[in-house]
Amino acid sequence: MENFVISALVENKFGVLARVAGLFSARGFNIKSLAVGETEDPEVSRMTIVAEADEKILEQIKKQLNKLINVIKVQDLTGADCVDKELILIKVKSGTAKAREKIVQVVDSMGAEIVDIGKKSVTIEETGDEHKINALIELVRPYGILEIARTGKIALQSE
Amino acid sequence: MENFVISALVENKFGVLARVAGLFSARGFNIKSLAVGETEDPEVSRMTIVAEADEKILEQIKKQLNKLINVIKVQDLTGADCVDKELILIKVKSGTAKAREKIVQVVDSMGAEIVDIGKKSVTIEETGDEHKINALIELVRPYGILEIARTGKIALQSE
Repeated sequence: MENFVISALVENKFGVLARVAGLFSARGFNIKSLAVGETEDPEVSRMTIVAEADEKILEQIKKQLNKLINVIKVQDLTGADCVDKELILIKVKSGTAKAREKIVQVVDSMGAEIVDIGKKSVTIEETGDEHKINALIELVRPYGILEIARTGKIALQSE
Repeated sequence: MENFVISALVENKFGVLARVAGLFSARGFNIKSLAVGETEDPEVSRMTIVAEADEKILEQIKKQLNKLINVIKVQDLTGADCVDKELILIKVKSGTAKAREKIVQVVDSMGAEIVDIGKKSVTIEETGDEHKINALIELVRPYGILEIARTGKIALQSE
């Protein structure tokens, strides 16, 4: 089982997302992350899907995706030479002055950014690949993670 | 019709995404953007959904989301005091040396970053709110957009 990355251009119509998600769930496996957003053409969206599957099932899914109505193009970016990035927001307990100081040090060392400061929490933003994002989570975990919102991976092929 | 933002914590099990997407498509309206990623607990994912609907339908959808199996918590962040961000990758034709120079100027002025340089294209990364991302798209459009991957909005409430 390996993580694969599928990028699909779809018409921006209702029901497309449900059909794509249904196709994965009918085969009994989970989407690890999914990012769907408009492209330069507001009629067309791009879905980037990360999921775990063996190669045989992956081939079946790609074929079926290509057959779905409103799906324009399917690219398999697994192992391809591409730029891939994720975005995360993490809200962490700010606690004591000493804890806050340590959190700022972690944020600086990771090239992340503090984007919101509340009475009892700070919210950190970071962009990077999966490993960088996971490293930040582990570094701030000891201070107390209150909430995380994470986009999932987006990717474009290098050319 | 207004854009609303729903943030839902869901169990990381197959079929949840299909059920949530189905709930929206059954009511005949489209998800504008969707970001799904793991939280600090690998068993739990957060979905951030942006869609267009009137308030009455929104109330129905929130109720039905709350009733869905594997849905842990639903928050309506529409108009709430929150940090919201998106991430975009844009591949633009690099064309002539003069065009490249202008693209670099746009990238610098927007606080964006060039993350990949190919023979005939450059890939730009930017993080920000929807308006900032849309502004970047319009600024680089004249040079020729080849591909866009956009995450959709993620948001955490200020507290």
